[in-house]
Amino acid sequence: MSGTVYLVGAGPGAADLLTLRAARLLERADIVFYDALVPAETLALAPGALKVAVGKRCGRRSTAQRFINKRLEDAARKHAVVVRLKGGDPMLFGRAHEELSHLRACGVRVEVVPGITAALAAAAETGISLTRRGAARSVAFLTPRTGEGERPNDWVRAALAADSVAIYMGAGDAASVARALIDAGKPPATPVAIVQGASLPGARRDYGTLDGLEALAVRACGGGPALILMGEIYREALASRIIARWRNEPSSYSRMARATRSGRARSSG
Amino acid sequence: MSGTVYLVGAGPGAADLLTLRAARLLERADIVFYDALVPAETLALAPGALKVAVGKRCGRRSTAQRFINKRLEDAARKHAVVVRLKGGDPMLFGRAHEELSHLRACGVRVEVVPGITAALAAAAETGISLTRRGAARSVAFLTPRTGEGERPNDWVRAALAADSVAIYMGAGDAASVARALIDAGKPPATPVAIVQGASLPGARRDYGTLDGLEALAVRACGGGPALILMGEIYREALASRIIARWRNEPSSYSRMARATRSGRARSSG
Repeated sequence: MSGTVYLVGAGPGAADLLTLRAARLLERADIVFYDALVPAETLALAPGALKVAVGKRCGRRSTAQRFINKRLEDAARKHAVVVRLKGGDPMLFGRAHEELSHLRACGVRVEVVPGITAALAAAAETGISLTRRGAARSVAFLTPRTGEGERPNDWVRAALAADSVAIYMGAGDAASVARALIDAGKPPATPVAIVQGASLPGARRDYGTLDGLEALAVRACGGGPALILMGEIYREALASRIIARWRNEPSSYSRMARATRSGRARSSG
Repeated sequence: MSGTVYLVGAGPGAADLLTLRAARLLERADIVFYDALVPAETLALAPGALKVAVGKRCGRRSTAQRFINKRLEDAARKHAVVVRLKGGDPMLFGRAHEELSHLRACGVRVEVVPGITAALAAAAETGISLTRRGAARSVAFLTPRTGEGERPNDWVRAALAADSVAIYMGAGDAASVARALIDAGKPPATPVAIVQGASLPGARRDYGTLDGLEALAVRACGGGPALILMGEIYREALASRIIARWRNEPSSYSRMARATRSGRARSSG
């Protein structure tokens, strides 16, 4: 066996947020296995390669992952350059662990090429730094999505302890995400942001408070996939949002203003 | 004034981990302000641009930052495409907040182009995913480096609560980082990794336990700049490291083996 499998981060969605290294690898790839979120423009960088879609269907995760592992192993026995393209970065919510373990166990050479993870694209989209000297020097990247062997609320502690938080795969369950955080003591008036399609032309972002997260998720992105961001770093953007909205719909002003009256978020009930 | 300032992530060090978007922006840049860590190969992508080094000197941070802010503002009044290149990602320990705030206050248009942050390059270097289904679904990115208005140990809580941790700008103070974590209750036998020069040809990585972090930092990278990683995800790599070392220096085996005897780390003191 002579091939190498490259686990490559395809980035957050925009084809031009791929790295130069990834682009060069695609040019010389013999075969490319790609997820549903990888853009067609990125695949077009590998004109000479076989392209295999391996997007996982909901509810059949484990079976599909074993199937992908096996296909990567088989491809490495036939081809020199096997590229496994994953949305975002392979090592952060990319399920790289399963593929790396399987391939190493089979003696297949593997390399990882990092990619731009969704939270950093979302931060660029908001124009608000996740860290801030004197105010925010820890950022938690986490998911409420449960895998085998996990207790449902294991993630809450990390979300409460960090200054800024990026929540992956949580917007579809915005109500229960907000409930879990508030029940654990996070103030309902904590500023939150929601970003959909970060880095893409139709990107949407909006700001609100934790107790209004579900409504915000619906308003900003119709309840579809999106990244949730949380922390005091969004207080200023939230205040601007309230002023802008007050100009358009004065009736909604008083409720939102109550939520941000104090400089530091406080529970109102 | 007609110019736009682009805050661009230059990535972790390897020139080919720049994004395509950043490379294209550099091609049409009129002027490029760059940090000390940006590689020469990356600057060479902007053959037609003025290049200005703005690496900050230790101990003169605030003055230097105000000076950079002003230079970016002035450049935007003269040039159409102003690129501010920062190591890693601008929104994660990149001090983008100061520059964004200043430029917006002056009415200068700013855009952010995300970059590969050091922790993701370090994860690629180790070949170990920061997240793992059923075992690790929160990752804290943090720094013990103190800015104005921060209490020294604000970061410790976030480090204790997350499943995996990436510590930026901490390797130079490895002894006090480890002490702060152990004093706060983190088991001394917690697996740690240290990665220097992630993504570069001379990259170094090594594994150990939290109570041996200082020695590890010296052994792996002579106490120079490096990223510290921590969490159960490194237990297997640590065990392999112990076996490899035992083959070379049997006398060190028993001490390290004690630290990892149980599947789950436990405090021994």
